[in-house]
Amino acid sequence: MARYNLPRTSDMSTSIEERSLIIHEQLRGKIGVHNKMPVRTKDDLSLAYTPGVAAPCKAIAADPTRTAALTLKSNSVAVVSDGSAVLGLGNIGANAAIPVMEGKALLFKEYADINAWPICLDTQDTEEIIETVRRIAPVFGGVNLEDISAPRCFEVESRLQDLGIPVFHDDQHGTAIVLLAALINACRLLDRDLSTVKVVINGAGAAGTAIAKLLRCIGQEPDACLSVCDVIVCDSKGAIHRGRSDLNPMKKDLLQFSNRDHRAGNLSEVLVGADVFIGVSKGNLVTAEMVKSMAPDPIIFAMANPDPEIMPDIAKTAGAAVVGTGRSDFPNQVNNVLAFPGIFRGALDVGATQITEKMKIVAAYALANAVESPTADYIIPSPLDRTVSPLIAQAVAQAFEAS
Amino acid sequence: MARYNLPRTSDMSTSIEERSLIIHEQLRGKIGVHNKMPVRTKDDLSLAYTPGVAAPCKAIAADPTRTAALTLKSNSVAVVSDGSAVLGLGNIGANAAIPVMEGKALLFKEYADINAWPICLDTQDTEEIIETVRRIAPVFGGVNLEDISAPRCFEVESRLQDLGIPVFHDDQHGTAIVLLAALINACRLLDRDLSTVKVVINGAGAAGTAIAKLLRCIGQEPDACLSVCDVIVCDSKGAIHRGRSDLNPMKKDLLQFSNRDHRAGNLSEVLVGADVFIGVSKGNLVTAEMVKSMAPDPIIFAMANPDPEIMPDIAKTAGAAVVGTGRSDFPNQVNNVLAFPGIFRGALDVGATQITEKMKIVAAYALANAVESPTADYIIPSPLDRTVSPLIAQAVAQAFEAS
Repeated sequence: MARYNLPRTSDMSTSIEERSLIIHEQLRGKIGVHNKMPVRTKDDLSLAYTPGVAAPCKAIAADPTRTAALTLKSNSVAVVSDGSAVLGLGNIGANAAIPVMEGKALLFKEYADINAWPICLDTQDTEEIIETVRRIAPVFGGVNLEDISAPRCFEVESRLQDLGIPVFHDDQHGTAIVLLAALINACRLLDRDLSTVKVVINGAGAAGTAIAKLLRCIGQEPDACLSVCDVIVCDSKGAIHRGRSDLNPMKKDLLQFSNRDHRAGNLSEVLVGADVFIGVSKGNLVTAEMVKSMAPDPIIFAMANPDPEIMPDIAKTAGAAVVGTGRSDFPNQVNNVLAFPGIFRGALDVGATQITEKMKIVAAYALANAVESPTADYIIPSPLDRTVSPLIAQAVAQAFEAS
Repeated sequence: MARYNLPRTSDMSTSIEERSLIIHEQLRGKIGVHNKMPVRTKDDLSLAYTPGVAAPCKAIAADPTRTAALTLKSNSVAVVSDGSAVLGLGNIGANAAIPVMEGKALLFKEYADINAWPICLDTQDTEEIIETVRRIAPVFGGVNLEDISAPRCFEVESRLQDLGIPVFHDDQHGTAIVLLAALINACRLLDRDLSTVKVVINGAGAAGTAIAKLLRCIGQEPDACLSVCDVIVCDSKGAIHRGRSDLNPMKKDLLQFSNRDHRAGNLSEVLVGADVFIGVSKGNLVTAEMVKSMAPDPIIFAMANPDPEIMPDIAKTAGAAVVGTGRSDFPNQVNNVLAFPGIFRGALDVGATQITEKMKIVAAYALANAVESPTADYIIPSPLDRTVSPLIAQAVAQAFEAS
């Protein structure tokens, strides 16, 4: 497989970024196409191409619902980005986003045997993104939207829900699902009732919004979207509440299921007495004092990358019972790769046309259940755990079939 | 590689189309994605994805000309179709075109180790096709346009020549290049001067137009676009000449370099005295009498599929010195697979931004030269000949570098 020469252990002093650049220079593409049938004889050529290929073409022309049954649409996903919000790098554009989308495709293959192909769009216009995805949809069985900036990402995703194949913005829902799984296990460990915990989310972008929406559905019953836990979402100006006149439509929408007590104030004010802090914002915004002001044994998810909202050791010293981050060098890494491969695997297996709220919730519970006995340092499986994706796929497929 | 169970030899009575349908049902995609690096350890994950991937992203953001050097753009081609003119099936639409585009991708991989990905467009509007190709171009190093009906195919291709990567309509130029190679060798065999033969082309669609344009450039010197051989192009109404009032702009354009003697008449009339017949039209249009009316020892390319303009045995009995068809069950098959893999291989190897006329001509000569000693039944290599693509790639790359 490997066509590159990784700098050896003796060169490990070289930084991750330097080594990554070397690998990218050597590979010139982390993924490639492979053929699933040989083309060695005239017969092969006649079967794969003309004249034999006319048969599946005619079969699909007669009945377009057979497309997936006869083509790569059955197992392919477009990883679509406009390069407007790439990792922590911001708006670096379509070309510079390619290495990330290739990495995503690599993970799709590795964890779910899905053929994902990067599509980096030379436009950042909402209408153009939507119409381009519609036009290229025929060969794909799903669309993973990636690294598209808020609030455009919400509109792009929601308007594509009628496409007939799942369209899933991973920065929103992938993060929300893995976070929910981690929260489920943290509550299990601490014997808390998930539907009554008080949650403060800092960050009202793609991830923060999706987390708030998914928490709306948390309940004792993974099947039900009934119970509403107590959530306050903050942006850079503090709590999002009815009294604010500066809210965009997405933030206003959050008020339908958050901040039911209409609390105002900045992050440190609304954090007082909260059970759970979820940070999807910026580094070093939460102090030890703020953690101490929370309810006893608080749960902290400080997911800003590379610098978390609060460093895990500081949070723990200040009394946090469980701490999760987005980083691989601390316990409890909330990493999207735990969710998206299994979710698409399940959806493709059953020909789902959307990823519904119920599918997201069961995915989170399946992920949480993959940890048999949660501990403070192990509420969520390792991103490298290959047993997770099939469990999620099965749960998602069952949720679709039961719907 | 094979994940399917081909019906065995004992089942060979089953038709090609029936067997092809079975294979397509079993494979559900003739191509897939493969990973070129492992994702087994935290270190792998950090190098392929976050945080290491930030390095190539930043390098490209700083210098977009490094995109191909750091990503799959270096070796990927989009096989783009709108499904409007698929094989002999006509306008069957995007979904039904997928098996053909997958087949094309399979051939790109098999003959040139290029990662080609099918893009079947849910639009047949010229402007929308052009803008969609522009928007999805960042991850691709080339675009192979396929099975787009004339005359839209001409405009789509010509307006995309400024894209910065080669955009090549294979139904036009692939066919023209392979035909030219076959004609070069037929003339060698018969000791004719290529620049003075009288040619009649029947069919003024994508292939016929491209052949006429390429023949314009034939000369003793493969480098020169100087000599003009004598070409008449016919459509269903007969010879295209100045006196006709029913010509669309593309057909009018043909008059700049064809029918210099302004001959009118139907196919049988203009064929009298011609040295070469090139059919890219419909089956059974040419009779033995028409062949007999041509100059002595005529050369016949009857490429309509599945039924040629004249069957090879009839043409030979009527006096044809060399006969080529589009079919794999007769000698001298004019098959595009002999050209497009090597042409894109050469273009990608040197980062060419267009496939120029000169690159097409040298490709045709390289293909012709792959046959050391032409005979009447062997003027063109077998489509399965793996030595051809590297020879064409080298010639195309040299032509680019010399330009």
